[in-house]
Amino acid sequence: MAESKYVKSKIFFEEEFEEKLAEVPTDPKGPWPANDNLKIIGKPVSRIDGYDKVSGTAVYTFDINLPRMAQARILRSAVPHAKIKKIDTGKAESLPGVLGILSSNNAQEIKWFNTSSLFDTHLRYQGDEIACVVAESEAIALKALKLIKIEFDELPFTVDAKEAMGEKAPKIYDEGNIQGGKPFEYARGDVDKAFQEADAIVEDTFDTQVAIHNPTEVHCSVVNWDGDDLTVWDSTQAIYGVRDTVADALKMPASKVRIIKKYMGGGFGSKLECGKYTVMAALLARKIGRPVRIVVDRKEMNLAVGNRPNSVQKLKLAASKDGTLTAISHYSYGAIGGYEGGAGCSWPARQMYKCDNVKVEEYSVFTNTGPTRPFRAPGYPQGIFALDSAIDMLAEKIRMNPLEFRMKNNAEKHPMWNAPFTSKLLKEAYEQGAKAIGWDKRNNQPGADKGPVKKGMGMASQIWWGGGGPPSHAVLKLNRDGSARVIAGTQDLGTGTYTFMAQIVHEVLDIPMDKIEVILGDTAVGPYCPSSGGSTTAPSVSPAVRDAAENMKIKLLEAAAAQLESEKKNLVYVNGLISDTSNPEKKIDIPGLMGKMGEQTITTTGSREANPEGYITQTFGAQFAKVEVDTLTGKIKVNKIVAAHDIGRVLNRKTLDNQFHGGIMQGLSYALMEEQIVDINTGKVVNTNLHDYKIPIIADIPEIEVIIVSEADPMNSNTGVKGCGEPAIIPTAAAIANAVYNAIGVRIKSLPMTPDKVLMALNQA
Amino acid sequence: MAESKYVKSKIFFEEEFEEKLAEVPTDPKGPWPANDNLKIIGKPVSRIDGYDKVSGTAVYTFDINLPRMAQARILRSAVPHAKIKKIDTGKAESLPGVLGILSSNNAQEIKWFNTSSLFDTHLRYQGDEIACVVAESEAIALKALKLIKIEFDELPFTVDAKEAMGEKAPKIYDEGNIQGGKPFEYARGDVDKAFQEADAIVEDTFDTQVAIHNPTEVHCSVVNWDGDDLTVWDSTQAIYGVRDTVADALKMPASKVRIIKKYMGGGFGSKLECGKYTVMAALLARKIGRPVRIVVDRKEMNLAVGNRPNSVQKLKLAASKDGTLTAISHYSYGAIGGYEGGAGCSWPARQMYKCDNVKVEEYSVFTNTGPTRPFRAPGYPQGIFALDSAIDMLAEKIRMNPLEFRMKNNAEKHPMWNAPFTSKLLKEAYEQGAKAIGWDKRNNQPGADKGPVKKGMGMASQIWWGGGGPPSHAVLKLNRDGSARVIAGTQDLGTGTYTFMAQIVHEVLDIPMDKIEVILGDTAVGPYCPSSGGSTTAPSVSPAVRDAAENMKIKLLEAAAAQLESEKKNLVYVNGLISDTSNPEKKIDIPGLMGKMGEQTITTTGSREANPEGYITQTFGAQFAKVEVDTLTGKIKVNKIVAAHDIGRVLNRKTLDNQFHGGIMQGLSYALMEEQIVDINTGKVVNTNLHDYKIPIIADIPEIEVIIVSEADPMNSNTGVKGCGEPAIIPTAAAIANAVYNAIGVRIKSLPMTPDKVLMALNQA
Repeated sequence: MAESKYVKSKIFFEEEFEEKLAEVPTDPKGPWPANDNLKIIGKPVSRIDGYDKVSGTAVYTFDINLPRMAQARILRSAVPHAKIKKIDTGKAESLPGVLGILSSNNAQEIKWFNTSSLFDTHLRYQGDEIACVVAESEAIALKALKLIKIEFDELPFTVDAKEAMGEKAPKIYDEGNIQGGKPFEYARGDVDKAFQEADAIVEDTFDTQVAIHNPTEVHCSVVNWDGDDLTVWDSTQAIYGVRDTVADALKMPASKVRIIKKYMGGGFGSKLECGKYTVMAALLARKIGRPVRIVVDRKEMNLAVGNRPNSVQKLKLAASKDGTLTAISHYSYGAIGGYEGGAGCSWPARQMYKCDNVKVEEYSVFTNTGPTRPFRAPGYPQGIFALDSAIDMLAEKIRMNPLEFRMKNNAEKHPMWNAPFTSKLLKEAYEQGAKAIGWDKRNNQPGADKGPVKKGMGMASQIWWGGGGPPSHAVLKLNRDGSARVIAGTQDLGTGTYTFMAQIVHEVLDIPMDKIEVILGDTAVGPYCPSSGGSTTAPSVSPAVRDAAENMKIKLLEAAAAQLESEKKNLVYVNGLISDTSNPEKKIDIPGLMGKMGEQTITTTGSREANPEGYITQTFGAQFAKVEVDTLTGKIKVNKIVAAHDIGRVLNRKTLDNQFHGGIMQGLSYALMEEQIVDINTGKVVNTNLHDYKIPIIADIPEIEVIIVSEADPMNSNTGVKGCGEPAIIPTAAAIANAVYNAIGVRIKSLPMTPDKVLMALNQA
Repeated sequence: MAESKYVKSKIFFEEEFEEKLAEVPTDPKGPWPANDNLKIIGKPVSRIDGYDKVSGTAVYTFDINLPRMAQARILRSAVPHAKIKKIDTGKAESLPGVLGILSSNNAQEIKWFNTSSLFDTHLRYQGDEIACVVAESEAIALKALKLIKIEFDELPFTVDAKEAMGEKAPKIYDEGNIQGGKPFEYARGDVDKAFQEADAIVEDTFDTQVAIHNPTEVHCSVVNWDGDDLTVWDSTQAIYGVRDTVADALKMPASKVRIIKKYMGGGFGSKLECGKYTVMAALLARKIGRPVRIVVDRKEMNLAVGNRPNSVQKLKLAASKDGTLTAISHYSYGAIGGYEGGAGCSWPARQMYKCDNVKVEEYSVFTNTGPTRPFRAPGYPQGIFALDSAIDMLAEKIRMNPLEFRMKNNAEKHPMWNAPFTSKLLKEAYEQGAKAIGWDKRNNQPGADKGPVKKGMGMASQIWWGGGGPPSHAVLKLNRDGSARVIAGTQDLGTGTYTFMAQIVHEVLDIPMDKIEVILGDTAVGPYCPSSGGSTTAPSVSPAVRDAAENMKIKLLEAAAAQLESEKKNLVYVNGLISDTSNPEKKIDIPGLMGKMGEQTITTTGSREANPEGYITQTFGAQFAKVEVDTLTGKIKVNKIVAAHDIGRVLNRKTLDNQFHGGIMQGLSYALMEEQIVDINTGKVVNTNLHDYKIPIIADIPEIEVIIVSEADPMNSNTGVKGCGEPAIIPTAAAIANAVYNAIGVRIKSLPMTPDKVLMALNQA
């Protein structure tokens, strides 16, 4: 797609805009027209923070360096399950350069997840926090950690969810290891009857691994007390969430806690909540009267800041001969580690397809392993991997093309609540994706390729939320020279929020991109926006920004009507110039108007409107994979992924592609490589670094084609945007798995699909 | 005055508030009632930033320390007038640790005052900027300055305004040394005729010295480029003004320049404009790709960042026997140094008293001395010193008590424009001040005291602006826990702006003071407020804050009406609880209401309303001094100052007293001690430090009694506030001078009234 001519505009009054005049929408509170009729929305606009990032001037939380700043590090449990008897910090305290140590010896009691506390004497997994040392340097802090002596009783441990559910397993909480004491259950229709009446049934068990978020930037906070005011720079997806957790933990008014995050090297969900380390740093900073930086290093991140939980999923599906999906039974369990979390993965089974009879039973199980945290579409990649593998099996059983089978069972209304969608273009995604991958050239007979390297094609479906909603607010400040600032309490995880916010202001007010600055990630100054998770940032924040910009235009037009003595209906705003269509003599530009108004800056606010009642907003899509499998080595190579999705309106084609490329790479990695391995004999993780924990290199990345089938969701806010961050990853592993089956005729039911599993499956077949 | 009970409130729902319910004003857009009926306004509330300041955790611009920050210092002219021929920076550049040097050799041409530029080769005074060095440390930068070789032609110089106006004087600008080429002139009535018809005439010449602002915190900036975005921490009275100057100088959009100033150690006008040093630091930071700190040290401050210009004032006054002031002629000149400025001091002559015939002629003269800058009530302390000395002389001539004479010539309407005042309580100030000082015990015969130490009493009047006005805006953010943040683009110079803003929010919304945070001094996030000069901050900003808080209350009441299904008119808001007076069951608190509204924070904005048309807002007052003069040593000791003023509503009795105490001390210092001395033979300043430039110590400070005669200005904004920072200093020197005359019977017509001048005057008499 060609670069928009508008993107390069450097001056305010540019004749090129004039020609678009007739197409500019007139209802400032109504939906936008299609992107073709917009100036910059949807165009492949380069990031406004691109220079900062490539030049190295971008300041990440990790880079914050305050005068007199001390360094804190955390002592963590080396064993999976224990009770502390005594902590002796004497030697560590006497190490020169050590400034303070907090542990259960001396820290105030601060409640944390469930019944646990900030410094708990019950250690529930390898990596659980024991003590925190602050010192003049990180090296001294690390040295001091080794000098702390812990006396503890080791307890029997369990690292396997199935074992943990058993009677004989050591109990991690008194009430037992099944979170909530019972499974999550769901049912509609009559599953038993449907299975009895079915023409075809498939039943199988799938399992998926523990995956670690591993964002580029490690978790870290820098805290500073200024009198009673606490400022925290934090690498977080939720500045307001961190603010409230810190304020609650320290019993402070929310207004006294300021959270700042400018740039961020990714989160993927692992930074969606406030970490214990942030609160520990705040306590230590207050104790020593100096700013404190705390870093959670790569090893700690691989142990302690969350993961995508594993799953074992028993699926049973039924269909009638005509290709109607008649029943789904989904039983699953997964390990959530020693603290609150969720291993559920049944959402796809419940809502992906039209199916009258569905039954779900899922267990989230406490184990002596690292904690879970939401990870890019929590539950969905694993759920779709199992469901869409089984769907392919069922389609094969009734000799139906799996694409056709999915098309047939597309749900026109939401299967759980029988409610209409604000928009759903899943069929279009199936069609356009299939066309792009060349679905008609797919092997009709799996494994039929001659030679050791066999090619195959597979697909899978995607469903997710991502409609966003209120509350979400923005403030816009227009300066007399026609430059502007947008301020919002959201945060850019690296996804491009800064850029799309500037684009929206440009779209509405024609202000050149290089005159628009965006202030995000500061709870003190940004009006509330939700945490950045669930692909809700763009759909929640973009309408608030547009609203603020439209309110600005309204304000300017009203002021101009008074200044020009014109009727408001005769005034048009083009490229920063307001003119009276009934009298060409009457016109005024922003500097002139603001001069007459006696204003140096004009401030407006905007808010995200309510979602339409009775409707459900979801994102949809399908991915198609072309693979080749070397049957001698067991190695799978993905050659191409086509991603065709309905994500509402595209705000920026470049950052949208970034999201999809990133999500698909992460999905491929999940499908083929990533896996946290716990030694069941010791309860310890054996691969806590990025050498042993495998992720793709550039040579592993296939050609990726991203097709957006949607123009806009006409009912979902004034921008028609839906989220795209999570949809990208959801169907990738399932599509690859189905392609592998199509290549070799043998199904791999366990992620990651490593060469050993492929060879073993080929041997068994 | 007793501490208000409300000040100490720590919890939201406190029954003490209930009793005030009936008195809470009901019109959110109307004026407030008297302070007695308000909860916290006018009470002696301690500063909310007091802890930060006394504990040392307050971060001033001087304290900002960024990673990799380099240090810049300026090379200044050692001679009063010269043209640079060559600058050789070779040796300086090769000094290890020097990172960059800017001068007219290599700096881009940036226009500055008048026809001058940032690095001008025409040096117009001792202290004029030549080059700027940035280095790894300040010590290296200072060493490098000494290694820069300047070849220059010394030019003839003039440091005396009278001489500079002469034909033979060296010209500092081609068009001559009188700024604007001619004097400022003003006339009303027929002065010549009035003098002819007068019963009494006095005529004399008064002169005043150059005084230096010398705020505690030196001038300094820290600049940092983040890509194309420039952040400047600056010790400034005008964040928006600095932003615009920097943006203009560097040809950047205003939105790309962010100015931050949290705490500040005073300015008094010297920090009202952007300094060259800030722009130099920005250029150097860009050049070396590192943050740069630049400091203007105490010596430089005494040379180069502005002063209160000197004045020679020839005054001729006439009166009729009945005590009517019939004519004023005021001729004056003053040295403004080598750059744009103003030495005018005729405002008091034009508007202090009712007088039908007034003529003014005043000259601002370029000289080879340091530049002027507005200094706490520019022109007024010197103008009132001369005028009110002459007024006393005239009253004596017609044998009238000078208090009575002033009362008689009080102007009911503005003498220049015949317009009514929004409020004027000058007579009340005369009466209450006279009563407090014991005016009736004043010597009737000057110098009549026996013995070498003679006592006297004197008074003087005060007039000033200080009404403030739009544009001025504020943003208020209410959190669900009932805590709040106020954000405004104003700045606290140390005067207490942080505190009164919190008080206003407390007053309207009952939020405890310790749950209110105030964000000032950041152009990126604060809506526009004017620069803090002219005593306009409180009268401009306080109404905007009240408006934002009232808008918040309106919003909450509207939301509560919907939630409670109540009629809005039945709802009352008391202490964060909204209840329905018609149904005691119906009530909801802020957390509950915001929960129902689905909001985490609510943001409102407020704006300063327009001033009433046709009216003039001014502040008025009178100060009374008791002195004793040792006729053997010539030393003047001030024993008491009573300051009685009409400054509208008192927002905070404590910070108000601070302002008056500070202003009176500065006025006393101006009267008796301060004086920049320039050697007319060399054109150099001989006292560029606080040892040789005299200011008072605590033993010099008299008893000070501050009487505020005004309750509120009923027409000047919704808070009724007028400014108080400058009124405090205006009449002090004149009141002391009149008291000295009353003590010794000899008039000192030259400031400062040092012992040598007193002895000389006594000898001459």
